[in-house]
Amino acid sequence: MPMLTPAQRTAWLRLVRSDNVGPVTFRQLVNRFGSVEASLDALPALMRGAGRPFRITSRAQAEDEIAALDRLNARVVAMGEADYPEHLTHIPAAPPLLTIAGGQDLNWHRTVAIVGARNASAAGAKMTRLLTTDLGEAGYVVVSGLARGIDTAAHRASLTTGTIAVLAGGLDCIYPDENIPLASEILGYGGALVTEMPLGWEPRARDFPRRNRIVSGLSLGTVVVEAAKRSGSLITARLALEQNRDVFAVPGSPLDPRAEGGNALIQQGAKLITSAADIIESLSAADPSRTLLFETEWQPDIGPVDAPPGADDRSRLLSALSTTPTDIEELLAQTEISPQAMQILLLEFDLAGQIEWSSGQLVALRGA
Amino acid sequence: MPMLTPAQRTAWLRLVRSDNVGPVTFRQLVNRFGSVEASLDALPALMRGAGRPFRITSRAQAEDEIAALDRLNARVVAMGEADYPEHLTHIPAAPPLLTIAGGQDLNWHRTVAIVGARNASAAGAKMTRLLTTDLGEAGYVVVSGLARGIDTAAHRASLTTGTIAVLAGGLDCIYPDENIPLASEILGYGGALVTEMPLGWEPRARDFPRRNRIVSGLSLGTVVVEAAKRSGSLITARLALEQNRDVFAVPGSPLDPRAEGGNALIQQGAKLITSAADIIESLSAADPSRTLLFETEWQPDIGPVDAPPGADDRSRLLSALSTTPTDIEELLAQTEISPQAMQILLLEFDLAGQIEWSSGQLVALRGA
Repeated sequence: MPMLTPAQRTAWLRLVRSDNVGPVTFRQLVNRFGSVEASLDALPALMRGAGRPFRITSRAQAEDEIAALDRLNARVVAMGEADYPEHLTHIPAAPPLLTIAGGQDLNWHRTVAIVGARNASAAGAKMTRLLTTDLGEAGYVVVSGLARGIDTAAHRASLTTGTIAVLAGGLDCIYPDENIPLASEILGYGGALVTEMPLGWEPRARDFPRRNRIVSGLSLGTVVVEAAKRSGSLITARLALEQNRDVFAVPGSPLDPRAEGGNALIQQGAKLITSAADIIESLSAADPSRTLLFETEWQPDIGPVDAPPGADDRSRLLSALSTTPTDIEELLAQTEISPQAMQILLLEFDLAGQIEWSSGQLVALRGA
Repeated sequence: MPMLTPAQRTAWLRLVRSDNVGPVTFRQLVNRFGSVEASLDALPALMRGAGRPFRITSRAQAEDEIAALDRLNARVVAMGEADYPEHLTHIPAAPPLLTIAGGQDLNWHRTVAIVGARNASAAGAKMTRLLTTDLGEAGYVVVSGLARGIDTAAHRASLTTGTIAVLAGGLDCIYPDENIPLASEILGYGGALVTEMPLGWEPRARDFPRRNRIVSGLSLGTVVVEAAKRSGSLITARLALEQNRDVFAVPGSPLDPRAEGGNALIQQGAKLITSAADIIESLSAADPSRTLLFETEWQPDIGPVDAPPGADDRSRLLSALSTTPTDIEELLAQTEISPQAMQILLLEFDLAGQIEWSSGQLVALRGA
């Protein structure tokens, strides 16, 4: 598999770290302009087009982050490189770059996520230890989110057999503080810390659901041990389903509020499990590369003639967009803008933070 | 719907109460000889053919039981009569006759069985009360087996809204003794006691699984609240599935042994429920008359010529039979006995207690 040159790695990091360049925008830019370097070159013109400033990360800033990661014995891994976790390549909006500390000798293919309530009960923690220990002994690496409660129990019980903690902030911003020692222990035992966020990034509330897609995406399946209704663990389970991965839930008494989420998941189709054997039996058939249920992303046929947006195309598109997600084909028909011009305008709006994609085909104005 | 005359009712009871006449044999006799009365007339010849004595209930014995039931304010109800519970007509091996006390004003169509562990936990009993109360308030009659634990909790919580207790022994043989007062309360509140067994019959271990098919068969669906592995409640659940009825199970922690049965049922396809609303939603689509998954019973084309068994047919069939269930068509081919003679011989062996049907098409020698 190809390795990036140092200059390419710096360019990837610059593009990923620039304002409003999420995984979807990153891929659209590279599809449109042919390479990461060409996309960086195109950003200033797109910014002028958008008429709104957005920050483009400088070469020096990217080199500084790589050097700082180096001092932490961490590495930047790009999608397509041998070190990039293969299971993660199959999810929608996979991160173009990850920063990883440790984990060089882990089996990143034989992975199970175990997630659950921060306010775990003693029984929930015990169940987590039982499942994790048996999965570890069966050769599975356990992935979790380093949160209090179930996550902590899962990491602790898999320290010696292999554990991966996915962070919502930078590698140097362990959350919660009380788990800073656990993060060190994970590295000490050869486990890994993983994040797509920059060094120094303190996690905000919205970063946790985004992180959760990596927890499930790194894993053949996700086990939910205790989860209340509307909890982060249920978000991870939903993401796992969207990623076409197995979701397992530990049942509990309907009289126990901590069992509500798991029981609801089972009613919605998650597999009820009572032991690691139940999980292992299902995972033996798991194939993380199986076809996703998603529609493909919109990608226009780009003709040989470059057709830049016309003078009033921008205002016509802006007035056609709303906060309700609209299909690209509908926008094309309504505005009569050419596909090439539409792509450029959407990239401009996207980079300026004005729109968001709710799937590869649906786009909406960002709410206030 | 037709009502039996007193003489017919006595004849039905005589046939049902004769040795080795279970529901399947009863139907085969009536199919072969055209009526209950003609079947009774044929029994002596079949006994001579079998060469083994079996008890044929006399008219006086049947009349005595009917009179005794009358004194208990109980009634004998035959399949096909208006009072016979319609849901029960759709199950394999439905009892030809039931004896019923009370329940005249119950809605026998809107029924849910609730069964579970005799050694119920406090939480299990609470869950049962919650489910039963809500089902009762929604107009459902609750069916159970009058056992200790969950059954008792279910009957108690549905006394005022409607409850049916199915017994494994005679109407005058309430088991366990401690529930004799509960049985009286059920009748006092207008609920019903139901059994297919004769007055004076003390239940043996084998009578409980047989009774359980009536619990599930009377009901649109069966709810299992707490059940250990290999428990009677799981037998009821399996019977409900065989009857093509809904099976619901209350989940519990894998650390709680009382949850093993329910969790295993959910893994096998039972619906996880946490509230009466979950049950009611499913039952709104339940149709107890939907086609069963069973093969049909063997029923030979009877030609106009009566072909009695030949001299050595009996010994040839006996040596062809084994304790392994064998298909009738195979027995016909192997022994070259005519279908008419085969039917007579199998009825003789059946009435003499020598064979058992393991489905409508498979027959085996009874084990020692």
